[in-house]
Amino acid sequence: MELNASRKQGRGRSRDRQRRNRATGDSFIQHPVQQYQLPFKPLDLVCAQTLETLHQASLKVLREHGMAFTLPQARAMLKRAGAHVVEGEPVVRFDPEMIMEKVAQAPSDFKIHGRKAEDFLTCGGPHINFSTLSSPPNATDLAGGRRPGNYQDFRNFLKLTHQINVAQVIAGYPVEPLDIAVPIRHLYTSRAILTMTEKPLRVYSHNRKRIRDVMQMVRIAHQLDDRDLIAQPRVFGSINPNSPRQYDDAMLIGIIECAKLGQPLIITPFTLAGAMAPVSLAGALTLQNAEALAGIAFAQIVRPGTPVMYGSFTSNIDMRSGAPAFGTPESAKCIIISGQLARRYNLPYRSSNANAANAPDAQAVYESQMSLWASLLSQSNFVFHGLGWLEGGLAASFEKFIIDAEMIQGLMEFIRPIDFSPAELALDAIGGVAPAGHYLGSAHTMQRYQTAFYTPFLSDWQNFEAWQQAGSLDATRRAEKIYRSLLDSYEQPVMDDAVGEELDAFVEKREAEGGSPVQ
Amino acid sequence: MELNASRKQGRGRSRDRQRRNRATGDSFIQHPVQQYQLPFKPLDLVCAQTLETLHQASLKVLREHGMAFTLPQARAMLKRAGAHVVEGEPVVRFDPEMIMEKVAQAPSDFKIHGRKAEDFLTCGGPHINFSTLSSPPNATDLAGGRRPGNYQDFRNFLKLTHQINVAQVIAGYPVEPLDIAVPIRHLYTSRAILTMTEKPLRVYSHNRKRIRDVMQMVRIAHQLDDRDLIAQPRVFGSINPNSPRQYDDAMLIGIIECAKLGQPLIITPFTLAGAMAPVSLAGALTLQNAEALAGIAFAQIVRPGTPVMYGSFTSNIDMRSGAPAFGTPESAKCIIISGQLARRYNLPYRSSNANAANAPDAQAVYESQMSLWASLLSQSNFVFHGLGWLEGGLAASFEKFIIDAEMIQGLMEFIRPIDFSPAELALDAIGGVAPAGHYLGSAHTMQRYQTAFYTPFLSDWQNFEAWQQAGSLDATRRAEKIYRSLLDSYEQPVMDDAVGEELDAFVEKREAEGGSPVQ
Repeated sequence: MELNASRKQGRGRSRDRQRRNRATGDSFIQHPVQQYQLPFKPLDLVCAQTLETLHQASLKVLREHGMAFTLPQARAMLKRAGAHVVEGEPVVRFDPEMIMEKVAQAPSDFKIHGRKAEDFLTCGGPHINFSTLSSPPNATDLAGGRRPGNYQDFRNFLKLTHQINVAQVIAGYPVEPLDIAVPIRHLYTSRAILTMTEKPLRVYSHNRKRIRDVMQMVRIAHQLDDRDLIAQPRVFGSINPNSPRQYDDAMLIGIIECAKLGQPLIITPFTLAGAMAPVSLAGALTLQNAEALAGIAFAQIVRPGTPVMYGSFTSNIDMRSGAPAFGTPESAKCIIISGQLARRYNLPYRSSNANAANAPDAQAVYESQMSLWASLLSQSNFVFHGLGWLEGGLAASFEKFIIDAEMIQGLMEFIRPIDFSPAELALDAIGGVAPAGHYLGSAHTMQRYQTAFYTPFLSDWQNFEAWQQAGSLDATRRAEKIYRSLLDSYEQPVMDDAVGEELDAFVEKREAEGGSPVQ
Repeated sequence: MELNASRKQGRGRSRDRQRRNRATGDSFIQHPVQQYQLPFKPLDLVCAQTLETLHQASLKVLREHGMAFTLPQARAMLKRAGAHVVEGEPVVRFDPEMIMEKVAQAPSDFKIHGRKAEDFLTCGGPHINFSTLSSPPNATDLAGGRRPGNYQDFRNFLKLTHQINVAQVIAGYPVEPLDIAVPIRHLYTSRAILTMTEKPLRVYSHNRKRIRDVMQMVRIAHQLDDRDLIAQPRVFGSINPNSPRQYDDAMLIGIIECAKLGQPLIITPFTLAGAMAPVSLAGALTLQNAEALAGIAFAQIVRPGTPVMYGSFTSNIDMRSGAPAFGTPESAKCIIISGQLARRYNLPYRSSNANAANAPDAQAVYESQMSLWASLLSQSNFVFHGLGWLEGGLAASFEKFIIDAEMIQGLMEFIRPIDFSPAELALDAIGGVAPAGHYLGSAHTMQRYQTAFYTPFLSDWQNFEAWQQAGSLDATRRAEKIYRSLLDSYEQPVMDDAVGEELDAFVEKREAEGGSPVQ
C-alpha cells in the first residue's frame, strides 16, 4: 500500500537511522537518547494515615530493636552522631528525631553523569531512568544455553548496553565474569565498562581497595579530580543490608567510600517476605523502611548531603518451595507503597524490573511487566535490573535484554502526552471523509503518518501467513536475531589514546601488585 | 522444607480444591468466583479542560457532519426524538443538547446475571469484569497449529470458560464454528453456551430473527419471561458502528431488539487511527466519542433507561504495512482517556485485552499487558476479549486463554488491599529475629504462610536445574498442559431435563424451518 512506499522514502533522510538499518537489517530503530518523565501523579496505594503508621512502626523498630552495624569504625561514627551504641555490641539503636534529621540532609534529587559530562540523568522528581541488570552468575541465550558467566559474555552485554538507548545506566556487571580471578576482576571489568561504553556506572562494595581502584579508574577515564567527581557524580554504590537488621563491614565500607567522594548510594534492603522479613507485607515493609532509613542516615553522617536513593526490593517467597519469587503481585504493591515512602522522605526512589522465570518466555514477560508497571506508577527514578534479568537474578539473558528494551520503550511511549491542538482534533478531516469511508489517503493522514505512531523494533505485525513464510519466529527468536545483529554492529566509542594508555597502565600496575585479594 | 509439608496438609481441608487438584495435577488452584473492584481512583491522562475540548469536538462532529443511520426505521425514531433527519438521506445530525439529554437517561451501572440469578456481575463504578474473547475465524494451539474455527474447538473453549473463574462473561463465540451452516449456527452455538456454561452471554446483531431466536433460547434456558429478563438482564449486545460515522442496518436492529428487552448494549466504535479514523489520536478519540454518543443516545431513544456501556477500541495501524496493531502504547493511552470520557458521561466502560501477535509468545504477553494495565487503570468495567485473543482477533489460542487467566488473576491480586493492622506490622516478630537471621520458622510466619501470598497456577518458580529436569517447559508449554487437563476435568453443569428438552425442541423446530438464512 501507499503508506509503505512513502515510509521507505522518508527513512532515507536520517543518516543515523540509515546506518543503524544497514547494521541490523531494518529492525532496530529506537528512541533517541533522552530523559523520561512521568507526566501524571504517581499512584498511591495506601492513604497518608497508613503511610504514617508504617513510618512510625519503622522508627519503633530502630528505637527498640535497633540495627546491627558490624564495622567498629561505623559504630564510632554513629556514636558521635548521637545514636545509642553499647561498647562491644553490634546493635545500634536510634532516636526517631536523629534518624529524621539525618534523612532530611539527603538531597531530593541528584544527577549522575556519563563520560561526557553533558550526558547526565536526573534521579528524583518525575524522572524515570532504567539501568542494565547486575551480577548474575550465569549467562544464557537460545543458541548457547545457560553457562557460567564469562568475560566474553560480559563484553557482549556491554556491546548491547552501549547501543541501546534505554539502557541508561550500568548497574554493575551484566554477568559475573567468573573466568577472571577475583583479585583483578574489578580492574578488567571496570576498564571494559569505561572504554566500551560512556554511560554512568556502579562500583561494587566488595572492599576498600577495590572501591578505591575503581574510583581511580573513573578519574582517569573521565579525566576528573575529586572536586569534579563530587560536583558531577559518575559512579554509584548499591548497598544491600544483610536483612534482617544488619549492615555488614563490606556494605558499610561501601557507604563510607562512596559518601566521602559524593558518589550516589542506592540503599536497598533485601526484605523477602517469609524469609529475611516477616511473611506479612506490612511487616516486610516496616522492616524494609527501618533498614533503609538507618542506612540513609548513616550515609549522611559520613558526609551530609550525600546523594542517596531509597531502594525497595521487597518481594515474597514461593510458599510451596521457599524459593524467592519476583514480579509477583505482592512485590508490585510493595514497589508502589515504597515509592510513597520515598516521596514522604523527599528522596529519589529505586525499584527493579524483576522476574523469576527460567526462560525468556511468557512468564518472564508478565512478571517483568508487573515490575515495570509498578515501577512506572510509583515514579521510580531508577529501575534497577531494567534489561536482561532472568531467573531471579541467577542468569543474564541476551534475548530478555532485547525484550526488556522493547517493553521499556513501549512504556515510555505510553507516558508521552497526546497533542490535542485543533489540527490534531481533525474536525475538518473527519468532515472530509464520508460515512463508512477511510482515512488512508487523506491529506491529514499523509501529513502525519510517518511520525504518528511508535514503531516497535521487536513486535511483528505482519499477518499470519507472512509471518509463517518468514519462518514463524516468535518474539524471543526475533530478539535473538536483533541482539546478534547489534553485536555485529558494535563500534567502540572513541577515547583519547593517552587516556586509554593511562587506564591500561593503572590496570597493569595493580595487577602486578596482585590486585585486591581481600574480600 | 517445613513450609512445603505443612502446606500439603493444609490443602486437604478443602474438598473443592482437592477435586480440582486431582483433575489438573496440582496445577490449577484459582481465585474463587468473585466480583473485583478497583480500590483506588482511576488514572486521568488528560485534564478536565482537555476532556471538555474532546467532548465539544465530538458534539461538533455530530452537529455539523452527523452520522449515517442506514435503517429507515431508525431514522424515523431519531426524527421523532428531535434529530435532524433529511428525507432520503442516511446522514442524521444532532443538537448537542439532545444528545446529552438522551445519554443522561442511561444508568450509571447495571447488573448482568448468569443462569443462576444470584450469580451476577455489576458493570459500572469501581467494578472490573473480564470476558472471554469473541469471533476469531481461526483456532490455534501448539499441538494442532492454526485451523479454521470449528464446533469442536468452540466447545472446548466453552469447557475452559466454564471452569476458569476469571472468565466471567461470554463475549460471543470464542471461535467461529465455520463447520456449522450460517442459518443455524446461532442455534447450535447458543444451545452449547447455555448448557455447557452458566455464565452471562452475548447475542450477535446479525439479524432480527436470529436475535429473537437467541432471546427465546435464553428465556427457555434461564426459565424467564420478558419481565424477568428486563429486571435481570442475561445477555448483552455488542454494537460496532461501521466507522467512520455510520450505523448500519444490522447494528441498528441489534440496538433496537436488545433495548426493547432491556438487555445491555456495549457501543464500541472501531476507530483505528490512520484507517477508519484520523491518524492523530486526538482525532481518533473525537470520532470514537461522537460515534459512541450517537449510538448510546439512539439506544435511549428506543427505550429510555436501556443499560449501555461506553466502549473504546481505538488503536492504530502499523505504519509500515497498514495492518491493524493492538496492545500498542497509543491504544493504552486511548483506553485511559476513553475511561475518563465514560466517567464524564456517568456510564459503565468497556475496554479490551488486545494484542496483534501471531503466537502466544513474549509479544502477545507484553501487548496484552499494555491492554490489561490500561484497562485496570481506566477502571474498565468490562474487559472484552479478556482471555484467548491472538493475532488481532484472527485466532483463538488455547494456550493464550490460560496465560490470560493467570495474568488477570495476578492483576486482581495487585489490587487486593494489604492489611496494616498491628499484628501484620509484626513489630514483635521483627524484634524476635536476630540481625542477619531469618523468619522461615517463626511463629508469625507459621500462622500466616498458607494464605500470605498469591499462588499462580502457571508460573514456575523452581530453580533452573529442577525446571530443566522437569523438561524445560516454557510458560506456553505449561499453559498447554493446563488447558488439556481442564478439558479432561470438565463436567457439564446440571440443567433440569425438561429445560434441556425444551431447548432441544426449539433448536429442532427452528432448524426444520431452515434457521435464519438472511444476512
